[in-house]
Amino acid sequence: MAGSSEPTRVMVAVNESSIKGYPHPSISSCAAFDWMLSKLVRSNTGGFHLLFLHVQVPDEDGFDDMDSIYASPADFQTMKQRDKIRGIHLLEYFVNQCHQLEIKCEAWIKQGDPKEVICSEVKRVQPDLLVVGSRGLGPFQRVFVGTVSEFCVKHADCPVITIKRKADEAPQDPVDD
Amino acid sequence: MAGSSEPTRVMVAVNESSIKGYPHPSISSCAAFDWMLSKLVRSNTGGFHLLFLHVQVPDEDGFDDMDSIYASPADFQTMKQRDKIRGIHLLEYFVNQCHQLEIKCEAWIKQGDPKEVICSEVKRVQPDLLVVGSRGLGPFQRVFVGTVSEFCVKHADCPVITIKRKADEAPQDPVDD
Repeated sequence: MAGSSEPTRVMVAVNESSIKGYPHPSISSCAAFDWMLSKLVRSNTGGFHLLFLHVQVPDEDGFDDMDSIYASPADFQTMKQRDKIRGIHLLEYFVNQCHQLEIKCEAWIKQGDPKEVICSEVKRVQPDLLVVGSRGLGPFQRVFVGTVSEFCVKHADCPVITIKRKADEAPQDPVDD
Repeated sequence: MAGSSEPTRVMVAVNESSIKGYPHPSISSCAAFDWMLSKLVRSNTGGFHLLFLHVQVPDEDGFDDMDSIYASPADFQTMKQRDKIRGIHLLEYFVNQCHQLEIKCEAWIKQGDPKEVICSEVKRVQPDLLVVGSRGLGPFQRVFVGTVSEFCVKHADCPVITIKRKADEAPQDPVDD
């Protein structure tokens, strides 16, 4: 088929679970990844190249350290080091799965506001498609938590597909993931 | 790969061109179809089942008949018949291409408001993915013409992918397609 010589480059934005604890990927990240594998990649593992982006929010991560005491520059160094390791473990989950399925992939970490970093990375990397998971929040919840997926659908410079969690996978508090 | 035995069912909403004349599909319908073939289906033609939906807007079609004179019920019958034939020719374009590429497909016509009919057909047919083309209008233009794709992203009961026309394919008036 025309244009099918180069693999389709799919960027997948992934994040950590807010409830399952280290180092689990979020429910919606897993849903997006699994959907993409079973519905798009299917058996055509050589036709796709996956690009995993994990954006760490510096403030949010710092929040976990409220009870920590920072006495020296080295303490901050340790904290940054720990955040980095968390991110690497998250990406390892996805890279390992691709490796088992023999799908080519790359993965990297950026810091900043997820929605803005995702869109700027799309500009830089120019994937054919961006896949983002979504908690599928209602309009009332969205007012307070904002949604990365809506922003990306509007602002990313490539086609975007949003995969909502299945209803039976949603935790008791739908803001959790 | 898990779940890849049944083909992925992709619904593609297609419409007529507003400028190229009968029976051309719109620029954005073609862009969406071509993108899907080259980036998702690729060489895996057996892994996908395409479902083409064309929604005819009764009022819009009637508008072309402003200068016609309706003298009997048979005149209306002729008009309806003609609209039906236009729709069938539009779908024929896509079905022919699928046939050549040996991709399984189905195509059908519905009447009504495109955005609402597309979402109700998604509910009925339950595809794995909905693909819609988009003119990629700016916020100012969107206020006046509305966009089917935005409505579907919000309301369709399945993942939706919106494919924008390439800038160099847009006609002089971006509302045209």
